[in-house]
Amino acid sequence: MDLSEFFPMWNKLTDTERKTLADSAYCRTFSKGDTLHRGGTECTGLVLVKSGQLRAYTTSQDGKEITLYRLFERDMCLLSASCMMKGIQFSVTLTAEKDTEALVIPAEIYKSVMKESAPLANFTNEVIASRLTETMWLIEQIMWKSFDRRLAAFLAEESAIENGNVLKITHEIIGNHLGSPREVVTRMLKYFADEGLVRLSRGTIEILDEEALRTLADK
Amino acid sequence: MDLSEFFPMWNKLTDTERKTLADSAYCRTFSKGDTLHRGGTECTGLVLVKSGQLRAYTTSQDGKEITLYRLFERDMCLLSASCMMKGIQFSVTLTAEKDTEALVIPAEIYKSVMKESAPLANFTNEVIASRLTETMWLIEQIMWKSFDRRLAAFLAEESAIENGNVLKITHEIIGNHLGSPREVVTRMLKYFADEGLVRLSRGTIEILDEEALRTLADK
Repeated sequence: MDLSEFFPMWNKLTDTERKTLADSAYCRTFSKGDTLHRGGTECTGLVLVKSGQLRAYTTSQDGKEITLYRLFERDMCLLSASCMMKGIQFSVTLTAEKDTEALVIPAEIYKSVMKESAPLANFTNEVIASRLTETMWLIEQIMWKSFDRRLAAFLAEESAIENGNVLKITHEIIGNHLGSPREVVTRMLKYFADEGLVRLSRGTIEILDEEALRTLADK
Repeated sequence: MDLSEFFPMWNKLTDTERKTLADSAYCRTFSKGDTLHRGGTECTGLVLVKSGQLRAYTTSQDGKEITLYRLFERDMCLLSASCMMKGIQFSVTLTAEKDTEALVIPAEIYKSVMKESAPLANFTNEVIASRLTETMWLIEQIMWKSFDRRLAAFLAEESAIENGNVLKITHEIIGNHLGSPREVVTRMLKYFADEGLVRLSRGTIEILDEEALRTLADK
């Protein structure tokens, strides 16, 4: 997978710009559980996901978590290069949810090309705008959706990501995604189990009625 | 106030680009309470605030509200031109909190200049990044801060915006800013009054101890 697959406007860059980006990019692998980036001060560089899965989340002072968004194959993480952008300043952590292969472009290099290239700057605009959309969507979810609907949406999404109906995930990790205590997750999952939506066993959640979960999520 | 005051990189645009933007811009005034923009489908254009105050907020199906951010003099509202950006898609409403004078640049014109101009695209990047920062900050507030601290922060901020310690604001409107029911606001304000932080009377809240409010807010 080369850089052109990440940048739809690759052929609108000049030869020099393409060469500058390509020469600077290097491969990095992250194991499941690795933290790539923490807080607003580091500057890991622009991370392009070749394979695997990353999770961006924010934490409270006492260690609670809520997932902001996830990045999959072909996604680009601006967060890890946030130092290159004026106006961005937040304390988001980025960890690998699966073993991940990535290309990294140093933030300074990316910034220098973007400064001169309208196509690259416009593409970057679109990526930031997508993250803004996801973040605003999350606010609506947190504010207006009851927990049963958020949990149903999460289980349906996980099932789609994993491409299967048996999820290996603990109640605590679900709580970290949704910003809720483990006990609240456990209680709601038991309710879902009673309703025949899922079957619970140690360390796994089997989805029995995905359609009902989706219906509940979309309510 | 002309366009150069809104765009710090104005002198990096070409003469043609400057002329295109300036010729297309027109003045609009909004009265307090007017809705400038609603949802993701309209395309009001890029709104530049000359004077006044705008509020961007999201609403639930049953009409509850929470403020996402506010725009003041010299701020630029991308939301109202969200149609010009791929990847942006959200249902945010924009209303005037004070009588507001604005310059509007049609979205299509702005987009066409930005497409060719790296300086304008990079500046736009910074503006979107600021909004993303504000939105992520809001998530942290909602998730991890107790309501007393959020209310204290809101009162201190209002006092700074209004440049005075007597706020003419109803409990219901505060609730709409913070995404909370009026009763919850009233209860906490009464607690603040008992603690000597504020004095309540019909339609106004007088801030008695701003320092204590700020200390509480920063906890």
